[in-house]
Amino acid sequence: MRIARFSIDGNVAFGAVEGDAAPGAGGELVLDIIKGIPFADFELSGTKVPLSKVRLLPPVLPSKVVAIGRNYAEHAAELGHAVVDEQGRLEPPVTFFKPSTSVVGPGDPITYPSFTQDLHYEAELAVVIGRMCREVPRERVKDVILGYTCANDVTARDIQQREKQWARAKGFDSSCPLGPWIETDLDPGDLAIQCTVNGEQRQLGRTGDMIRPVEDLIVHISEAMTLLPGDVILTGTPAGVGPLNVGDEVAVTIEGIGTLTNKVIKRG
Amino acid sequence: MRIARFSIDGNVAFGAVEGDAAPGAGGELVLDIIKGIPFADFELSGTKVPLSKVRLLPPVLPSKVVAIGRNYAEHAAELGHAVVDEQGRLEPPVTFFKPSTSVVGPGDPITYPSFTQDLHYEAELAVVIGRMCREVPRERVKDVILGYTCANDVTARDIQQREKQWARAKGFDSSCPLGPWIETDLDPGDLAIQCTVNGEQRQLGRTGDMIRPVEDLIVHISEAMTLLPGDVILTGTPAGVGPLNVGDEVAVTIEGIGTLTNKVIKRG
Repeated sequence: MRIARFSIDGNVAFGAVEGDAAPGAGGELVLDIIKGIPFADFELSGTKVPLSKVRLLPPVLPSKVVAIGRNYAEHAAELGHAVVDEQGRLEPPVTFFKPSTSVVGPGDPITYPSFTQDLHYEAELAVVIGRMCREVPRERVKDVILGYTCANDVTARDIQQREKQWARAKGFDSSCPLGPWIETDLDPGDLAIQCTVNGEQRQLGRTGDMIRPVEDLIVHISEAMTLLPGDVILTGTPAGVGPLNVGDEVAVTIEGIGTLTNKVIKRG
Repeated sequence: MRIARFSIDGNVAFGAVEGDAAPGAGGELVLDIIKGIPFADFELSGTKVPLSKVRLLPPVLPSKVVAIGRNYAEHAAELGHAVVDEQGRLEPPVTFFKPSTSVVGPGDPITYPSFTQDLHYEAELAVVIGRMCREVPRERVKDVILGYTCANDVTARDIQQREKQWARAKGFDSSCPLGPWIETDLDPGDLAIQCTVNGEQRQLGRTGDMIRPVEDLIVHISEAMTLLPGDVILTGTPAGVGPLNVGDEVAVTIEGIGTLTNKVIKRG
């Protein structure tokens, strides 16, 4: 099932996305409004609204986004970082937070911050947590995941290189577009992940190339901290990162999920 | 005014702390229950409860805690870090997040995590944000601050040294004790800040020795991100950090605020 969050006539609701908008399919997508919230047992109301009549919101409002850096070897290499130490042992995952104030939804603008001159896109698979959990054993990871969505780990690359911890470089307002919806029936093991800027392909990877798969990341993070329903895990970006400029339209597409599109605007 | 957050008979409320419990003063502290919340205009209800009859909670539930590292030169030196670069220029502030799930209140246990063998205390002055703000100019910083409380930036030092970003080392559950209350009438410019473990002094510094004062930190952080009412800024720790063990009682005392006490317990 695909679960979207949206506003209509000033109300916010979750809905199941139905229909097939693939080229040639001719169908219009509709939302079957969910009674309740998707983090518990829920029913579909049967009340349907066309997707074109609503404004999609970030599919969740996470209390925190926990993100992983350098989880694709080619991307780590393009930024000049090793993923193994001098003894050939795998480095621990690079783990950082993006705050709730960084989250925006599909179609929302990415505002170019005043303190950077080098804004970059980073297409990532995002995991949406479905239930409160801590110290999740590997074999139970599936039970705590609600589904998957697309994310853009927008980064002020110059600030990231200058400041030792990345709260400003990766935590500024609108640095975490999420969407367009949560796909609950998906094996994240080997999906194509793509980023385009103004329609030109910039990143094309496969989640199968992650150094650590989703299960390992959830074990690693939840060893330290409680994850709450709606919390989001970003799983790292493949090679091909590069700059965004004011006016650019950046799109993250993940096989089996859909496309998250955002436009870069000037700070007003 | 001192504003505490507390639970009594299953209800949560804010209250103004009144009375003088200083040695010899003989007074018992009472809470005058606040009508509404302290982030807007509010009145005192006149309904008073003895502090001894309530359970104090973290004085706020922040959406995020933004913390600053290496803001006291002696502390940076004790961990082997320079605060100026090779040209003698001041390094940018080290800025990181602690998530809402890391926050506990006065008297709450600090649970020794299973993934560290070197848990450390770090006494810090905490700034509580009073209103939503972004890109705060230096001369307006006072307007966005509700007040000040004590914090302990509890750190898994071994993990901090091993992992490049500090989400796990400083973001685990119970790594951010806050309290005992918010003091709204205080000049943070030069206050004594002390940490004791089992009654023995381990840190004693003055906020006047901060490399960057509170105003600069709020300007720096809010340049990148929106701060929400109740968000908390940790301002760095003075020299003298060291280990905590299961069974230890750690207390952070800041002049003009009070004492935040927590006991370290074994993971159950």
